[in-house]
Amino acid sequence: MSLPPFTRAEYDARITRTRAAMDRAGVDLLIVTDPSNMHWLTGYDGWSFYVHQAVVLTMTGEPLWFGRAMDAEGAKLTAWLAEDSLIPYPDHYVQSTERHPMDYLSAQLIDRGHGAARIGVEMDNYWFTAAAFASLSRNLPNAPFTDCTGLVNWQRAVKSEAEIAHMRQAARLVEAMHARIRDVAEVGMRKCDLVAEIYDASLRGVPGIGGDYPAIVPMLPSGREATAPHLTWDERPLQKGEGTFFEIAGVYRRYHCPLSRTLFLGEPTQTFRDAEAAVAEGMEAGLASARPGNTCEDIAVAFFDTLARHGFEKDSRTGYPIGLSYPPDWGERTMSLRRGDKTELVTGMTFHFMTGLWLQDMGFEMTESILITETGVECLANVPRELVVKA
Amino acid sequence: MSLPPFTRAEYDARITRTRAAMDRAGVDLLIVTDPSNMHWLTGYDGWSFYVHQAVVLTMTGEPLWFGRAMDAEGAKLTAWLAEDSLIPYPDHYVQSTERHPMDYLSAQLIDRGHGAARIGVEMDNYWFTAAAFASLSRNLPNAPFTDCTGLVNWQRAVKSEAEIAHMRQAARLVEAMHARIRDVAEVGMRKCDLVAEIYDASLRGVPGIGGDYPAIVPMLPSGREATAPHLTWDERPLQKGEGTFFEIAGVYRRYHCPLSRTLFLGEPTQTFRDAEAAVAEGMEAGLASARPGNTCEDIAVAFFDTLARHGFEKDSRTGYPIGLSYPPDWGERTMSLRRGDKTELVTGMTFHFMTGLWLQDMGFEMTESILITETGVECLANVPRELVVKA
Repeated sequence: MSLPPFTRAEYDARITRTRAAMDRAGVDLLIVTDPSNMHWLTGYDGWSFYVHQAVVLTMTGEPLWFGRAMDAEGAKLTAWLAEDSLIPYPDHYVQSTERHPMDYLSAQLIDRGHGAARIGVEMDNYWFTAAAFASLSRNLPNAPFTDCTGLVNWQRAVKSEAEIAHMRQAARLVEAMHARIRDVAEVGMRKCDLVAEIYDASLRGVPGIGGDYPAIVPMLPSGREATAPHLTWDERPLQKGEGTFFEIAGVYRRYHCPLSRTLFLGEPTQTFRDAEAAVAEGMEAGLASARPGNTCEDIAVAFFDTLARHGFEKDSRTGYPIGLSYPPDWGERTMSLRRGDKTELVTGMTFHFMTGLWLQDMGFEMTESILITETGVECLANVPRELVVKA
Repeated sequence: MSLPPFTRAEYDARITRTRAAMDRAGVDLLIVTDPSNMHWLTGYDGWSFYVHQAVVLTMTGEPLWFGRAMDAEGAKLTAWLAEDSLIPYPDHYVQSTERHPMDYLSAQLIDRGHGAARIGVEMDNYWFTAAAFASLSRNLPNAPFTDCTGLVNWQRAVKSEAEIAHMRQAARLVEAMHARIRDVAEVGMRKCDLVAEIYDASLRGVPGIGGDYPAIVPMLPSGREATAPHLTWDERPLQKGEGTFFEIAGVYRRYHCPLSRTLFLGEPTQTFRDAEAAVAEGMEAGLASARPGNTCEDIAVAFFDTLARHGFEKDSRTGYPIGLSYPPDWGERTMSLRRGDKTELVTGMTFHFMTGLWLQDMGFEMTESILITETGVECLANVPRELVVKA
């Protein structure tokens, strides 16, 4: 049984922090639909986000869990909430064209005296559809709505000691995954077989630590395909003379440690060697700028400027916060390491320093997951920072 | 390189069918945000649905692909579209709080003369957020919007021969996965290690067929946890005297064949034996009702009535259509096998006949993926339909 992994005091602190943010946003009831945010507030864990569900947080009392009736059993097993804090909805609301689960939630909120609450909703969250908002707006005509996308995500930015401990476990897993790739990858191996090896390393883990599922499946495009960052694998064998990047994460109880490396089978081309040198030096520059008091932009500018000196240009962001996550994304969707993001770095923040280059005819990824410490920065995992070359 | 797996004629037929449905719905421009629908119309494949993207279909010409600039490379590699049918948006639209990707799409639609089109949107699709709709509504004030949730999904209901061939490959994979579980599961094995075995079987596949990632990760809850259908694994070892159900799917190039079985380690309790007998007989009754001309409800009623004679009650639906899918769900979200669903069964429809029972203190799943044939029904996979018992 997966008990909530954190103390009740930690959950209380999370809720207090969230309520302060709600107060600043001018809302007194928050409908949280992001599964990572739901988990972070209540411990609820389950692959149930393919139906409508939410956590409702008001300014007093326990959060309420709202979900499909059959998933209330999962809420009893995983969340720290009392049973009367669960609002299960009947199965005929599931994927119905006549009624919407948010119709049911609306009625429940009115019953509980929240019909005129100032309600915050996560307008741009994957799991908050246009239809969900239409239902709430129609059924709660006296409630003013405020967009609170990212409100809870921002509270998650600075990790607790317990969360960092989880991420360190995830780092052990991603180390094992890259070690496996280095061991087994060879010319002629089918991509799907290599993915089996990656899953095997990530799930069996290392002594005492088994793995959880990643919010993004392994990405390992080769050659020309690697110019596109998000293609998934097929049955094609690895080729001599081709580079393949591995964008993967170790995951321990939903906490992620992403880390990418690139493999070249045969003699690397000059472009790969140049990319390796540029990214390695750029990362050193970025890491040197990663410390409390500096900003997200500082890391990005240090990296981009070094790249530019090497003749490489990158226009996409070069990192994002990480931690607790569910599909489809292991980023937290708040800050970005990019020009213009003046968010101050604070001890306990964690980022994927995502320094990937997707060029005209190849892709190169060599990244780190980092923790902002009191004195600077720490790389969570220890994987040789180099292009992996095998004959 | 993953070329679109279907002929251009098949894509043309899909588009013709979709346009006829658009005409019936009174729209002349459809914004398709469901990744399965996008793939089905254009062949586009990539793990890019964590940012806003869409396929835009009008009544003439090629569909347009809309997505993040870095993913346009993936569109060139996987979709059959001409390069000038791709609309990439700049990276500063990604997870920005100041601008929304749908602002960009709106401007593009106006430029192309669609500012006053009658626009259909998938209001209740995961990937169509409330903010996306707010952006379109704000930026396209002269366009009337119609909810077209499920419009494309319904066109996918009857599978082509080529699609059925894909699903038969997926069936071979799920057979291998259940065979592996039967071989290796034993008392004391950690859940995460068993999941590694399941992934290994699904990805390495069988001669000539490698596997793709499932839209839902393997579910294998044991004992009391199995009263909750959607909990994922942990590091706990399998226990003697406990039942574990396996809700898993074989996946071949995004086409799914889900199939569940239940394992009991030790001497099964009477409840497990009773559930096995009831579900087995109920499935026979349901399968006997599965034929062209009958309805979705007919299968469900035959199954529920048999269960009731055995003293079991099930109030959730007992199946849904399957085929091409992306996370978070391998169902197509159109018909349901449940009371009241009068949709007529047609040759070429495919369903997961999802006969799971989640009871007070245990769960039991024994299911089939089925194809409606001219004369009745066919189970896609061949896995012994029984409770798997190991000492």
